Amino acid sequence: MWTLDGDGPLYQQVYRAARRAILSAELAPGTRVPSTRGLARDLGVSRNTVILAYDQLFSEGYLAAREGSGTFVASNLPDDLTESIRSDRGERRQADIFSPRLAAYGRRLVDLSDRQPLTWEARAAPLSFDFRYGRPNFFDFPHDTWCRVLARRARRASVKQLDYGPPAGRDELRSAIAEYLWRSRGVVCTPEQVVVVNGSQQALDLAARVLVDQGDRVVIEEPHYPGARLAFECAGAEVVAGELDGDGLRVDSLPADRPIRLVYVTPAHQFPSGVNMPVQRRLEVLAWAEKVDTIIFEDDYDSEFRYSGRPVEALQGLDRAGRVLYSGTFSKLMFPSLRLGYMVLPAALVAPVVAAKAVCDTGCSALDQVALADFMQEGHFDRHLRRSRTRNAKRREALLHALQRYLGDRVEVSGVNAGLHVLAWLQGFAARRLPALRRRAAEQGVGIYPVSPYYREPPKRAGLLLGFASLQEREIDEGIRRLASVLDGES
Amino acid sequence: MWTLDGDGPLYQQVYRAARRAILSAELAPGTRVPSTRGLARDLGVSRNTVILAYDQLFSEGYLAAREGSGTFVASNLPDDLTESIRSDRGERRQADIFSPRLAAYGRRLVDLSDRQPLTWEARAAPLSFDFRYGRPNFFDFPHDTWCRVLARRARRASVKQLDYGPPAGRDELRSAIAEYLWRSRGVVCTPEQVVVVNGSQQALDLAARVLVDQGDRVVIEEPHYPGARLAFECAGAEVVAGELDGDGLRVDSLPADRPIRLVYVTPAHQFPSGVNMPVQRRLEVLAWAEKVDTIIFEDDYDSEFRYSGRPVEALQGLDRAGRVLYSGTFSKLMFPSLRLGYMVLPAALVAPVVAAKAVCDTGCSALDQVALADFMQEGHFDRHLRRSRTRNAKRREALLHALQRYLGDRVEVSGVNAGLHVLAWLQGFAARRLPALRRRAAEQGVGIYPVSPYYREPPKRAGLLLGFASLQEREIDEGIRRLASVLDGES
Repeated sequence: MWTLDGDGPLYQQVYRAARRAILSAELAPGTRVPSTRGLARDLGVSRNTVILAYDQLFSEGYLAAREGSGTFVASNLPDDLTESIRSDRGERRQADIFSPRLAAYGRRLVDLSDRQPLTWEARAAPLSFDFRYGRPNFFDFPHDTWCRVLARRARRASVKQLDYGPPAGRDELRSAIAEYLWRSRGVVCTPEQVVVVNGSQQALDLAARVLVDQGDRVVIEEPHYPGARLAFECAGAEVVAGELDGDGLRVDSLPADRPIRLVYVTPAHQFPSGVNMPVQRRLEVLAWAEKVDTIIFEDDYDSEFRYSGRPVEALQGLDRAGRVLYSGTFSKLMFPSLRLGYMVLPAALVAPVVAAKAVCDTGCSALDQVALADFMQEGHFDRHLRRSRTRNAKRREALLHALQRYLGDRVEVSGVNAGLHVLAWLQGFAARRLPALRRRAAEQGVGIYPVSPYYREPPKRAGLLLGFASLQEREIDEGIRRLASVLDGES
Repeated sequence: MWTLDGDGPLYQQVYRAARRAILSAELAPGTRVPSTRGLARDLGVSRNTVILAYDQLFSEGYLAAREGSGTFVASNLPDDLTESIRSDRGERRQADIFSPRLAAYGRRLVDLSDRQPLTWEARAAPLSFDFRYGRPNFFDFPHDTWCRVLARRARRASVKQLDYGPPAGRDELRSAIAEYLWRSRGVVCTPEQVVVVNGSQQALDLAARVLVDQGDRVVIEEPHYPGARLAFECAGAEVVAGELDGDGLRVDSLPADRPIRLVYVTPAHQFPSGVNMPVQRRLEVLAWAEKVDTIIFEDDYDSEFRYSGRPVEALQGLDRAGRVLYSGTFSKLMFPSLRLGYMVLPAALVAPVVAAKAVCDTGCSALDQVALADFMQEGHFDRHLRRSRTRNAKRREALLHALQRYLGDRVEVSGVNAGLHVLAWLQGFAARRLPALRRRAAEQGVGIYPVSPYYREPPKRAGLLLGFASLQEREIDEGIRRLASVLDGES
């Protein structure tokens, strides 16, 4: 007799057992099925259980009724039906033999991701002195306040808030962002030009989709953030690297011939080198963009963290023609898993990008958006920003001091007084020796990260990206002390 | 003397005033700037305010210092710099004259969205008897329980939860989804095959990006959900319409010649017609897919709402070769603005789709994911589903009863006993008369929605999509009564 798989409600077990019997032709098409009473007795289940199971098989077309003569296995089942017994659980997994042809986008995606995996996840075994970069300090964040704002918005959720919303984002958040960007970054925009996205990666992706065709030339800085290159290369762009100097992207290193679809820049705090682009250079970049008739993607990922004076105003604020597409994220100011960022678009690009956002995912999660709007409008955001700016300034000082104290002129620090990381070049230490150094350092609980992955042509000299936000000042000091002693051992 | 714009901190106002003076060449390159003391007096601000403003201009390169002879306007500013005065706020907006060339994707996006806008937003002026479809009943949802689960997870957020997470989704949610789908939908998968996405629209978009090249043929049902067609057409697909009968997609209406990249189906409850695909037809579709070597995208958007017996098992559960890409959403079971859905992928597609998700947005918001996982694991989800299924069954009955009572055989209802809407054909009433009917109905507080937008070739007869989930039974009865009297007036 049939055996029940013991998974889920009884009538479902009976349903699956009977279905298996039919699919395996143990119950041949056209034959009468066991009576509900008989089967119930044999299986030791209630008759209603069997009736429910039969109803289901009936509604799915496995069973058919004949006027006045009971229930039969449907006789019009396709021949290969018996085959699909294998579709039952377990037996099926390894039978996944089909491997579909990928589209060009999919193939580029797989090739490029293999070559340089984008991993945002924290390391498995945490280190006591981990100089990992690209993270805020989670303990600086006023979590209780955030939870209070969030819970209040959740409790008072209106139908409007629970329903589908505008793809461009909730009005209250778009206004809060526009106001904040004008006040703190000199970004010139109305709320209508702001599109809320799932972090800056989506800003890059939407720009690439709307603007970049296969074969188009896109200029990026060298070195650069790989997530940007990946987005453009997946879209089929031919990526052209522009060189850097102490003032950021060197305009004289850029192609002067058209067409160039887009140029990706990080003027406030070049990633990863940390240099800042002064106003003259910004105007040269704008003039060049005008000349070659291209679009500028300004990634302003961490410029809020500027420790002397106020942050240089955004390139977008100098743009006269509406060529600058500005983007920022809340990952470094709130926390990464909030997955909220924004684009500020030239008038001409608002409609296409909003349409793209709608087709991509119809819009971001509502609760996070409205809670963040409250968090900003009630001043919590600015307060947190000021506080964490002070703390990170101290951490940066501690790092520079420790580097000076323990490594002296064996290290050369690049970049301006800003951001959440420092780029340190190890003098007289070859890049090829870094893997060994990293292992030795990790043994001492020190996590260090080479800058090489951010170059298309890895440099010969050994550069380290040292993130300081997530460490305390004394941890920073101790970490660098240990690194120095490891270096002593290596040389 | 310079006027301050009164916006923001004083030193920023002074900074902008001085910047304007420089950009407008009122302060020519190379000339000495007013002394801090003098300017402070003239503007009636503190000297420190002026010093802060000058520091900023200095750090941005507008000002330069000459050994022992004070501060001057930088002489090496590009000539066209004076131009950028216009970049100051207000004056700039209308100067957005640049209109960039869009990529092919962007152009298709704009054309197609214009032709058929995807609007998920609720109507401005709510109607008392709005038969809008595609929404759950927000008052059925156990909001307090959800807020409790959410707040608990928010309060106890770990660093891991606040940090960047796996692009495929949080493990706890992927496991909860896999378990739920196997138990309730007969979907055969491991948690590793589940990818969490921002609603089913992103599932469509990711599939289109990874699988569809420009010019590829994609089969969709006619009529169909326009969000699906848009995703595929934006990717450049040539969309081929398959015909329906009472058993869903007619295989004999499908092209028998290769290549066909993908076929999009809604077997459990065809949208919008509401027909269900019985097992024989499902196996025919699978056999056809095998023959033409194509991929099946199974959109299981609302099959949880099946009112007689349990939902027919997913097509994915019958798939032997791993050709079926299964997708579902929480928009109808939780609420739309949660923006969470899932894909269940054949083994061969997991890596490319996860890579695509990573490049798109690096992953969904963490809090929503972990809270939903708790909500499911603690049984709240199943309880809510059972309860709302019962309520919606009653609402559907009430609708059918009212249609019978007030319209009798002037209306023909299509579709099976499932879902959150009913497709009703008005007999002897031409489609072209619907706009007038809608206006008249709205005057009576009744919201009705024609089915025509879901056809590429709008039918001659007048079809209405009647959503019943968000109305009470007596509202449904009254709404149809009013509709009937409006119809009397029209005929």
